[in-house]
Amino acid sequence: MNACVLYSGGKDSSLMAVILQKLGYEVELVTVNFGTFQSWKAAAESASNIGFKHRVLEADRNVLESAVDTIIKDGFPNNGINQIHLHALELAASNYHLIADGTRRDDRVPKLNINQIQSFEDRNHVQYMTLAGFGHKTIEDLSERLFTVKKELTSMENNSDYEIEIRHMIGEREGEEAAFNIFPEHVQSRVIGWRENE
Amino acid sequence: MNACVLYSGGKDSSLMAVILQKLGYEVELVTVNFGTFQSWKAAAESASNIGFKHRVLEADRNVLESAVDTIIKDGFPNNGINQIHLHALELAASNYHLIADGTRRDDRVPKLNINQIQSFEDRNHVQYMTLAGFGHKTIEDLSERLFTVKKELTSMENNSDYEIEIRHMIGEREGEEAAFNIFPEHVQSRVIGWRENE
Repeated sequence: MNACVLYSGGKDSSLMAVILQKLGYEVELVTVNFGTFQSWKAAAESASNIGFKHRVLEADRNVLESAVDTIIKDGFPNNGINQIHLHALELAASNYHLIADGTRRDDRVPKLNINQIQSFEDRNHVQYMTLAGFGHKTIEDLSERLFTVKKELTSMENNSDYEIEIRHMIGEREGEEAAFNIFPEHVQSRVIGWRENE
Repeated sequence: MNACVLYSGGKDSSLMAVILQKLGYEVELVTVNFGTFQSWKAAAESASNIGFKHRVLEADRNVLESAVDTIIKDGFPNNGINQIHLHALELAASNYHLIADGTRRDDRVPKLNINQIQSFEDRNHVQYMTLAGFGHKTIEDLSERLFTVKKELTSMENNSDYEIEIRHMIGEREGEEAAFNIFPEHVQSRVIGWRENE
């Protein structure tokens, strides 16, 4: 059975991919892109480094525009990111039987509630899977055992989260400072390969 | 790293065990028993059939008494079963670093809420893992691919859920009819081995 993981190159979505593969699924990693900035490149590199097939799913720029409207109005990114995530899932659902992402127990955004999950599965006749049963520490342990991870400050070049195209569009519309206020600088972890012993 | 799965012999806890093993944990399956009825036997048999180590954790009969009080007062089993499940987790936590169970996304009982999970992990310095990211259909698919499963009516001999010792105690206290009203007859699925091709 085929399955896809919405993929950023981070530890969570990489672990989800590994679990599905170990359970016998044919896994493809997909990164949604709105055509405004090539933010999928870091994810494609991570996917290649751990030997997974990677695809870019082209999404409608209007969805990004609308999410950015929400984020500028709200002054914080949560609702806009959820809008984008739901759209990304719908896109993936037209191509795959099982759609997974790396959202874990203690994540707050992006996150679907139980009604959104049920509706998403029923409307699209797909199965949806997450890491909601896994806590932060467990994922840290597993990631350390499985992957070589690079910790670095997030930049426009080394990250494939939704954040990057959002930040780019806010920067164009409202200037760099506005983008920086909504997404302050932070350290990220990116999977750059397997551990030597894997 | 060692890990245990609270184990009933059903598809959910069996799948949890397989996932942990595939991720590199040394997995032991444990079934809690209050010493009132040997309801762990079916679980031990399933565990042996799929090649996992199985242990019975002896629990305090008073906890079962108290849960049965709750269930008789409520007229339904949910709260009492949650009491027992929490106790089972605490018992397991004194023996293992990672405690897992087969509760999935659409389960309602037993289930810990996010605050109970956080408190359980923090108090015991353990990690807790579930199948909360997996829906019913996904587990059906995986189980069909992995296991040979026997469908049959639940009896006192073929099931290792908390239900059995509860039912036995209610039967002794209130009579068979009271036990039957709280736990009506139902069909269960029990893992009895691997699929041939595994």
